[in-house]
Amino acid sequence: MTDPKDHLVLFMPSGKRGRFPKGKVIIDAARELGVYVESVCGGRGICGRCQIDIQEGNFAKHGITSSNDHISPFGAKEKRYAEKRDLKEGRRLSCSSTVEGDLVVDIPQDGQINAAVVRKVDDGRVIERNPALQLCYVEVEEPDMHKPLGDLDRLKVALNDDWGWEDLMVDSHLMPHVQQILRQGEWKVTAVIHRDMETARPSIIALYPGLKNEAYGIACDIGSTTIAMHLVSLLSGNTIASSGAPNPQIRFGEDLMSRVSYVMMNPEGREGMTTAVRVALNGLIENVCTEAGVEPNDILDLVFVGNPIMHHLFLGIDPTELGGAPFALAVSGAVHTWASDLDLVTNKGARVYILPCIAGHVGADAAAVTLCEGPHRQESQMLVVDVGTNAEIVLGNSHRTLAASSPTGPAFEGAEISCGQRAAPGAIERVRIDPETLESRVRIIGVDKWSDEEGFDEAAESLGITGVCGSAIIEVVAEMYLAGIISEDGVINGSLAEKSDRIIEDGRTFSYVLWRGKQTHTIQQTDVRAIQLAKAALYAGIKLLMDKLEIEQVDSISFAGAFGTFIDPKYAMVLGLIPDCDLDKVKAVGNAAGYGAKMALLNRGYRREIEETVTKIEKIETALESKFQDHFVNAMALPNKVEPFPKLSEQVKLPEKTADNNGSGDADGGRRRRRRARG
Amino acid sequence: MTDPKDHLVLFMPSGKRGRFPKGKVIIDAARELGVYVESVCGGRGICGRCQIDIQEGNFAKHGITSSNDHISPFGAKEKRYAEKRDLKEGRRLSCSSTVEGDLVVDIPQDGQINAAVVRKVDDGRVIERNPALQLCYVEVEEPDMHKPLGDLDRLKVALNDDWGWEDLMVDSHLMPHVQQILRQGEWKVTAVIHRDMETARPSIIALYPGLKNEAYGIACDIGSTTIAMHLVSLLSGNTIASSGAPNPQIRFGEDLMSRVSYVMMNPEGREGMTTAVRVALNGLIENVCTEAGVEPNDILDLVFVGNPIMHHLFLGIDPTELGGAPFALAVSGAVHTWASDLDLVTNKGARVYILPCIAGHVGADAAAVTLCEGPHRQESQMLVVDVGTNAEIVLGNSHRTLAASSPTGPAFEGAEISCGQRAAPGAIERVRIDPETLESRVRIIGVDKWSDEEGFDEAAESLGITGVCGSAIIEVVAEMYLAGIISEDGVINGSLAEKSDRIIEDGRTFSYVLWRGKQTHTIQQTDVRAIQLAKAALYAGIKLLMDKLEIEQVDSISFAGAFGTFIDPKYAMVLGLIPDCDLDKVKAVGNAAGYGAKMALLNRGYRREIEETVTKIEKIETALESKFQDHFVNAMALPNKVEPFPKLSEQVKLPEKTADNNGSGDADGGRRRRRRARG
Repeated sequence: MTDPKDHLVLFMPSGKRGRFPKGKVIIDAARELGVYVESVCGGRGICGRCQIDIQEGNFAKHGITSSNDHISPFGAKEKRYAEKRDLKEGRRLSCSSTVEGDLVVDIPQDGQINAAVVRKVDDGRVIERNPALQLCYVEVEEPDMHKPLGDLDRLKVALNDDWGWEDLMVDSHLMPHVQQILRQGEWKVTAVIHRDMETARPSIIALYPGLKNEAYGIACDIGSTTIAMHLVSLLSGNTIASSGAPNPQIRFGEDLMSRVSYVMMNPEGREGMTTAVRVALNGLIENVCTEAGVEPNDILDLVFVGNPIMHHLFLGIDPTELGGAPFALAVSGAVHTWASDLDLVTNKGARVYILPCIAGHVGADAAAVTLCEGPHRQESQMLVVDVGTNAEIVLGNSHRTLAASSPTGPAFEGAEISCGQRAAPGAIERVRIDPETLESRVRIIGVDKWSDEEGFDEAAESLGITGVCGSAIIEVVAEMYLAGIISEDGVINGSLAEKSDRIIEDGRTFSYVLWRGKQTHTIQQTDVRAIQLAKAALYAGIKLLMDKLEIEQVDSISFAGAFGTFIDPKYAMVLGLIPDCDLDKVKAVGNAAGYGAKMALLNRGYRREIEETVTKIEKIETALESKFQDHFVNAMALPNKVEPFPKLSEQVKLPEKTADNNGSGDADGGRRRRRRARG
Repeated sequence: MTDPKDHLVLFMPSGKRGRFPKGKVIIDAARELGVYVESVCGGRGICGRCQIDIQEGNFAKHGITSSNDHISPFGAKEKRYAEKRDLKEGRRLSCSSTVEGDLVVDIPQDGQINAAVVRKVDDGRVIERNPALQLCYVEVEEPDMHKPLGDLDRLKVALNDDWGWEDLMVDSHLMPHVQQILRQGEWKVTAVIHRDMETARPSIIALYPGLKNEAYGIACDIGSTTIAMHLVSLLSGNTIASSGAPNPQIRFGEDLMSRVSYVMMNPEGREGMTTAVRVALNGLIENVCTEAGVEPNDILDLVFVGNPIMHHLFLGIDPTELGGAPFALAVSGAVHTWASDLDLVTNKGARVYILPCIAGHVGADAAAVTLCEGPHRQESQMLVVDVGTNAEIVLGNSHRTLAASSPTGPAFEGAEISCGQRAAPGAIERVRIDPETLESRVRIIGVDKWSDEEGFDEAAESLGITGVCGSAIIEVVAEMYLAGIISEDGVINGSLAEKSDRIIEDGRTFSYVLWRGKQTHTIQQTDVRAIQLAKAALYAGIKLLMDKLEIEQVDSISFAGAFGTFIDPKYAMVLGLIPDCDLDKVKAVGNAAGYGAKMALLNRGYRREIEETVTKIEKIETALESKFQDHFVNAMALPNKVEPFPKLSEQVKLPEKTADNNGSGDADGGRRRRRRARG
C-alpha cells in the first residue's frame, strides 16, 4: 500500500531502510524503522542530540535552499541551534528536517552527540543502544487556580502529551523537590524516565531544571582481587573514565573460599565485607567522576557483575551456602534495585542492574563474559574461558550452551608459586629458554627490552627483577617443556644438571634457575606440579563439556580476564590448558565481563538476552561428574594425553621425545601406576 | 451452555450466585463469581481462613458422611485442621470441600477468620474487601546442584505455580534475608505480595518462615490539630486498636496558615515540622501495636489522609505555595511510596498509599470523606461538610460533584472565642436558655447531668466548669438567638439588661453571662460576630456550589469530623450554617476521613474509585467567584437572608419578630446600609 511517490530513506550504519512520504520528519522515519536516534528535547531543536549527516541526495547547506533538495531546507530551529551551539557544516537536526526525496542518512558516530551503536575498541564489535533510561525535556503548564492539578501531576501530563509516557510512577525521593525544580527551570525541566522491562511501569527517577543534555552510567566488574569500573555516557555510549582498585575484602581472605570461611567464623564478617566492597565502589565512583569532571549525582544507571560470592557479599547476602554442596545461590536471577539501597553515592534515583548468575560457581561475571562473546549467538562451537581461582567455562553455540566451573586454584594467578608475584613493575612477564644451552632470557613489566638486549640492565636497575607474574608462569613451564627441561609428566630432568648449572638439586627433586641477579628466581618441582594441577583442572572441565556436546574440537576460544590478556595462547596450547584449535581463532578478549556489563548498561535488550540465555545454559557441576576425575588425571601430562596435536605441532616446535624426557624419580612412578590402571 | 445437572450455589452475604458442576471446589466457585474468600495457605487446609457455613442443603457434620449431602463429606484436611485448631460445629473449609448439590454458602462475618465485607459500626455500611496485599503460603523446592536456580528464584517459581503470580518483583531489603527465612521455615514460607494497580507489577514485599496467618494495616487521618490512627487486621478487616494524639506541629503554629508562615520565616522550619509529624506517627504506631499486642514489623500497608498542608509536610514538601494564589499543590494525585521512605517504623517492605488531593484547599482528607460518604455514588443531592479552620464542602451526585473550601476561620473550633476552649473534661458542651427568664443551663464534658439537675454540682466540683468547647459555641449562639437575646443581625439586645442581670454592658456593646460560678463565662458581642463570620463563610461556600448545580435545596447533609459529631444539626440549621434540609437527613458521620482511609486500606478498588472521582470533581475556588461575597454578606444574618425555612420552622420554635429583635447600635446601622444597597 506504499504510495509510489514515497521516497527511499536509508539509515547508516545500521543499513535499515524504508519508504516515506514527502514531508516526513526524519527522526520519526528513523524510529519507525527501529533506528535509535537520541533526542532529549523532543523535537524542539535545542538539545542537538538528533544530528544526522546526509550522505547522498542534493541537500541544503546552512541557510541555502534549493528546489532540488531531497531534504527540507535548513529551518529556523536549526539556524537557532547552529548559532548558539556547534553544528558542523552539513549536519542537520533530524527532528527539524523532513524527507523531500531519496536520502541516505548517516547517524554520526562521533560519540559526542549521538550514537546508535557503540563500537568495541579492540575488535570493532558494536553495541546497539537502547538504554533503560531516557532523558525527556518538557515544558510544563504553570499552576492555574481553575485546574488544581499538582505540579508533579502537570509534569506527568506533559510527559504523556510530548513523549507518550503513560502511567508513570515517581520515585518518592523526588516528591519534596519537584516543586522547586519546576520553578527553578521556569517550568522547563528534563525528566529522567527509567523503564527496564516492558512489563514494568516506567518511573520518573530524576528531574533537572531546564535542558539536561547528559547522563552517565557505571559498568563495573567486582572481581575477588580487583574491581574495575567504567564511567559511560548514556547518551554517546562512550566510556569517559575507567578506574580499578584492589578488592579490599582481600584483608578478610585472599581467595574466595577463605572469605567464605571468614564469614563462617565471624558473625559480623559478612557485614564487614559488604561494607568494605561498597566503600571501595564509592571510592572508584569518586575517582572516575573526578577524572571525567562529572558529578556523581549525574550517574543514573549502574550495572554490576561479579562471581557468586562477590555478588552475594555486594548485595549483603551471606555467602556461606556457596561454600559447600549444593552451592545454593540465594538469588540467581537478575537483580533490579536502587543504588542507594546498596549505599552507593550516586543520584538518589539511580538504578542498579546486576546480571543473573549462571550457577553456584558460575556467576554474573561469567554471564557478562557470555553476553560479550556470544557463543549463544552463533553457529560454530565457541569456548569461553575466564581464569581465576576458579575457571569459568562456557562452551557451545546457538543450539546448546553449557557452563561449568573448574577448581584451578590460585596457581594461574601466581599464588602458590615460589617465585610468583602479582603483576607489577619488575615482575617477569615473558620468558624464552634456549633448548641448546638452557639459558633463559626474560622481559619484565615496565621495561620494553628483553634481558639480552642492550640497555636492559640500566632500564631494569631501578625496578629490580622481583619475581614471576601469574600469567608468565604458563610461559615458563611451557618453555621448560619445549626446552626438554621437564618431561611429559612434568618432572624436572635432573640429568640435565650435568649440562647446565641452571638445573640444581633441591632435596629429592630438581629446580630450574630462571634468573640469576641481585635476586635469584627458581622454578621448583612443586611449582611445575601446581601448574600441572591447575591446567589439568581447567582442561578436564573443558573436556567434560566437549563430551556432553559430543564434539572433538572447538571452533574458537576466547580467553577472558587479565590472565587471558597476558598469556600467549600458543603456550596455553603447548601446556594443554585448552583443546586443539586453530591458533588464529584463539584470542584474548580482555575484560569481557566489564564489556558485558557495559552492553547491559547501554542496551536493555542485552539484559533480556542474557536473562533468557542463562535459563537455557546447561550447568555442569564438575564435582558430580565421574568422568571429570578421569579427564583430570589424563590432563596432568604435558601436553594432555588425549589426542594428537597436528595443527599445533605445525606451528610450534615440540620437543623430540628422548630417553631423558622420561625423567626419573617419584613422579614417573606415579605416571606408570596410572598407565597400569588404564590398562 | 450450562450442564443442566449443574448445581446452584448462592454465596451470602453478597447474594452472588452461579451454577457449578458436581465436584467443584467451593473456594474456586466463590472466586469465579468474584466473591472474596480469604486463603493464605492456598488450599492446603492449614490456615483456616477460607471457612464457610452451609445454610441450606443437607450437609455433613464433622466426620459423618451421608449420601444425601449437597457438599462433599468432611475430608482429611478438614479433620486435621479441626483437631489442631478451632473449627466451629458445622463450619467447613471451602478449599477442601466440593459442590455436590444446590448450596447456600455463608461467608462468616465473625471477623476473626475471614471477611468478604466489613460493616461500618455506626450505620452498617459495608466495605468489600480487596486488599492490595495478599499472603501466600508456599512450599519451596530445596536447592539442587543439578538445577542451580537461586533460593529467591525457586520461591518465585512456587508463587507462580501455586498462586499464579507471574513476573514478580522483589523488594531489595529482602535480598539478604530470603536465604535464611527459607531455611528457618524449612522451605515453607509465607510471602506477602503487594499489587495495588493492575498496571503495576506485583512485588514480594515481605517474607515469613512457615505459615503467617495475619497481617496488619494502618488507616490514619493527619489533622492539623489531631492525628487519628487505626490499626486494622488486613485479613479480618477489623479495627483492632485506635489511638489519637495532638499534632505536634501545633508548637510551630496553631492553625494551618501560621505553620505555612513558620516555614516561610524559618529555612529549617519545613524539616522540623516533617520530623515532628513523623515522630508523632511512630509514637501512635507504637501505641496501637502495644494496645493490640501486634509487632510493628507485621504492619505492611498504610493509608494516610490529611489536608493539603498536612499532606505536604508529611511528605517533606514545602507547603509555602499553598499559602497564596494560585494555591499550587506540589502533588495532587495519589501517592504510592514506602513507609521507610517516610521514616515510619513498620515492616521494611510496608507500602504507603496517600489518597489524592482535590485542590489546593481541599485535600486528601476531603477525598477520604467523599469516598466514605459517596455523593458520587448516588442520585440524590448530597452535601458533605467537614468543618475545621477551613470548611471543605463537597456537593453533588453521581452526575456531577463540586468541591470548595470556605475560609470559616477557627471560630467553630472555639478559637477566637473569649471563653472558648478545646473539648476537655469541664468544658461546656450543651446549653439551653430559657426564653422567658434568659437563665441558662449547661452540660459539661465528663458529667452526665444538666446543671439544674440534682447532683451536678458535686459531680462538676472536681472538674470545674472551665469554658465553652468549640462545637458548643454554635449551640450557645443559636440558643441566644432562639431566646431573643440576639437579633437577626447578631446584635446582643442591650435593652434586655433591664429584664435580666445576665445581659451586661460591656463598653459600647453588651454581653451575655452564660455561666456564673467559681469562673464566669461570658459570651461577648465579638464572639457572636466571629460565629457569624464563620457561618457566613460556610454557608456562602455551600450556596455557591448550589448555584453552580442550579439547585435550591439538598437532599441530605453529612457532617464529618469532630465538629459534626458534637454539634446538634438542629442548631446548625437555626443559625443557617447549612441550607434547608429534612432534619432526618442531616447526620454526623464522625471521622469519615479516617473511615475513607480504612476503605482504601481494605479495598484497592476504592483507591481507583477515589482517584477517578477526584479527576471528575469540579473545584470551585471561592476566592475567584464574585457571587461568594454576596452570599457571604447575606449569610451574616441569623438565619440567612436567603429563603424561608418552612420545614425547619415546623420543627424548631423560631423567635417571633419583635421590635426588640431589631436591636440597636452600630451593627444595626450596618444592616440598614446593606438593605439600602440591595434596594
